[in-house]
Amino acid sequence: MDRDGSARRIERDIETLAGPDYTLTSEAIRRYAYTDVYRRTLDYFVGELGALGFDVEEDAVGTLTARNRPKGEPVFGVGSHCDSNRNGGKYDGTMGVVTALEVCRLNEEQGLDLPLQLISFLEEEGSGFGQMLLGSRIIAQRVTEEDLRERFVSLDDGRSFWEHAADAGYEPDRWRACAHVLDDLTGWIEMHIEQARVLQDTGNRIGLVTAIAGYVHADVVVHGRGDHAGATPMDFRLDPTLPLADTILGLERMARGAGQGTVGTVGEIEVDPGIINAIAAQVRFSLDIRGPVEGAYKGVAREIAAFTEQAAAARGLTADYRERQSIPPTPMDDRIVGALETATRATGEPYMRMHSGAAHDTMCVADRVPTAMVFVPCVEGISHHPAEDASPADAALAAEIILNAIRTLT
Amino acid sequence: MDRDGSARRIERDIETLAGPDYTLTSEAIRRYAYTDVYRRTLDYFVGELGALGFDVEEDAVGTLTARNRPKGEPVFGVGSHCDSNRNGGKYDGTMGVVTALEVCRLNEEQGLDLPLQLISFLEEEGSGFGQMLLGSRIIAQRVTEEDLRERFVSLDDGRSFWEHAADAGYEPDRWRACAHVLDDLTGWIEMHIEQARVLQDTGNRIGLVTAIAGYVHADVVVHGRGDHAGATPMDFRLDPTLPLADTILGLERMARGAGQGTVGTVGEIEVDPGIINAIAAQVRFSLDIRGPVEGAYKGVAREIAAFTEQAAAARGLTADYRERQSIPPTPMDDRIVGALETATRATGEPYMRMHSGAAHDTMCVADRVPTAMVFVPCVEGISHHPAEDASPADAALAAEIILNAIRTLT
Repeated sequence: MDRDGSARRIERDIETLAGPDYTLTSEAIRRYAYTDVYRRTLDYFVGELGALGFDVEEDAVGTLTARNRPKGEPVFGVGSHCDSNRNGGKYDGTMGVVTALEVCRLNEEQGLDLPLQLISFLEEEGSGFGQMLLGSRIIAQRVTEEDLRERFVSLDDGRSFWEHAADAGYEPDRWRACAHVLDDLTGWIEMHIEQARVLQDTGNRIGLVTAIAGYVHADVVVHGRGDHAGATPMDFRLDPTLPLADTILGLERMARGAGQGTVGTVGEIEVDPGIINAIAAQVRFSLDIRGPVEGAYKGVAREIAAFTEQAAAARGLTADYRERQSIPPTPMDDRIVGALETATRATGEPYMRMHSGAAHDTMCVADRVPTAMVFVPCVEGISHHPAEDASPADAALAAEIILNAIRTLT
Repeated sequence: MDRDGSARRIERDIETLAGPDYTLTSEAIRRYAYTDVYRRTLDYFVGELGALGFDVEEDAVGTLTARNRPKGEPVFGVGSHCDSNRNGGKYDGTMGVVTALEVCRLNEEQGLDLPLQLISFLEEEGSGFGQMLLGSRIIAQRVTEEDLRERFVSLDDGRSFWEHAADAGYEPDRWRACAHVLDDLTGWIEMHIEQARVLQDTGNRIGLVTAIAGYVHADVVVHGRGDHAGATPMDFRLDPTLPLADTILGLERMARGAGQGTVGTVGEIEVDPGIINAIAAQVRFSLDIRGPVEGAYKGVAREIAAFTEQAAAARGLTADYRERQSIPPTPMDDRIVGALETATRATGEPYMRMHSGAAHDTMCVADRVPTAMVFVPCVEGISHHPAEDASPADAALAAEIILNAIRTLT
């Protein structure tokens, strides 16, 4: 195959979708469900896939599908998501959809006529409604109607997902029908940038994912007492930043202790009132605890929940731990991983098997369909940031590998 | 004296100045230099003092003075500040100006004709430009012209103090003349709420301040590396929240270890980017380190600066400590404190000698004038908060004590 030609098309797609029509700010890629820039991004794929003769549809909330066979006939799925986090780069998600598009183009160009269905999932990053993997969770029916009608609200205006979807012309009351998106799939492969530095540091161009880590997302609120920072003697304080500090250090110790790929992060810290001369009245912080081994990372989540309450109580304060979201680990399908490995070996390019620490829509597809993922390196592991960088040549290599794997699977 | 009548007048003043014309929000008292609500607050005092026959003036940047003697004749100073922090209460500062006004009223009512000068200082809280004690520091010439022209900028719009002062009709280029505000003072007494729980918990109605704590305000920035929270193994991280946690716990340990009234607080924490699934790239936090004994609290400031850099380095990160502001402790004048003690004893009300942990404008007056302060209790020690509460009856008691002390001093 003409890998250089693929790389040029992929680069053109990526750069087009990084242009001013496709992001809410020039300082980063920022696009999410039901914005004009997201609509235009979908329209770009609609145009490219329509030109290949694919039938393009959107489900009841806005996940895009395109297939080269009538409904009811088996197809093999490829795709990813094309929304971004709010301070995002050009490659996370979008490069996966673009590579899937390139698989469809190569299929046409080579006259293979493999039965394909491309999917671009809605709201993977949670930038619109604070809910990660939202489109694929709706497809997997891992949400409730109450979630969509009431609990999931816009970070911009506080109105519900339901209202926003309806305003954008979708039919959220038909959300249960979104499950049909997966009906005809015989398999699924998602390509994505790695979002860490393992491939770069080990000199591999391709990562074949064997499992996706599960995770727990939680919030802790420590209730203290807001007092004057100068006038309140040390013995009279109920300072919530101290249990925060205990918990940050405790989580690191527990995650390292659990091993088996377990990681733990405090990424959000909100101090109320947050002024230099006031002891905080309250601190809220987030916990992100993950790993490919459920027993290991869930143990850390239970342990830190108890630890933070004890750390607060030991200082005369109280703390509330509240789980925000929890998703189990997802093993990939041995047969598809094997087909990808055979196709990769045939290229002679360096690759490795690995687990994915990041969550992906593929986790929700795996409920019903045999799945796998292919990673390509990203520079310095930087992701979720405008400096995100990855190579169209690696994506072209991935497109060739995915196409050749599907040939042996269908 | 008619202490009940004084309490009623003080309460009326306080409640008037808590009304909608005198605060930028109904949810708190929020007023600061060069806003309409601050202008109306000054005008209220202008009206009340004018009615007593005082000559009212404002200095080159907006500190209000009023005197019942011609310039050049000795006067005794009373007053405080009438700006608030952004989420403030009715009493911090304002009750001190109102009590000083009541001293002037009692002086008139009793026919004492003591020579008095009331001062209401500008921008004690730093709500407008992030600079505490700004008006009194200008009077004490503890700022530079560059500070006023360039470094001190509005928290609302980023424009300089200089521009805002000029727009409000003042003459910032004459700022050095502000020093003359103190020229004729033979002494100075500021009344203020305690802002802590010591008076309440010990059952005292009056606190006679013997010294005001000095402080160091500083910022620490810890530079880490922003990475994906799921995809980055524990050993590949440069997470700046860990040195933050080390420093929070280290500061508490050092402040307790130093004793002698030393306190240390981390009040502001900013995490960049501050999202649940990202290891922070950078964390900034504030340090507030105080005490009445300079050797003790300055030792803590030096120790924590070195500690935070070492804590970062031990984890492969870097940290920058930058001092924002530093003010030495201020001893009060023995003779004035003694006169206040005699006047307090004569009332038979319970009182105590104490140091002030909070900073006050009196620190800047003390450069040139013998000074003292009188504290009254505030409920639960709550201050810098809409729930702030204090008793007009205590303020009336303070007014009587201050007036009687000044009688013996002039």
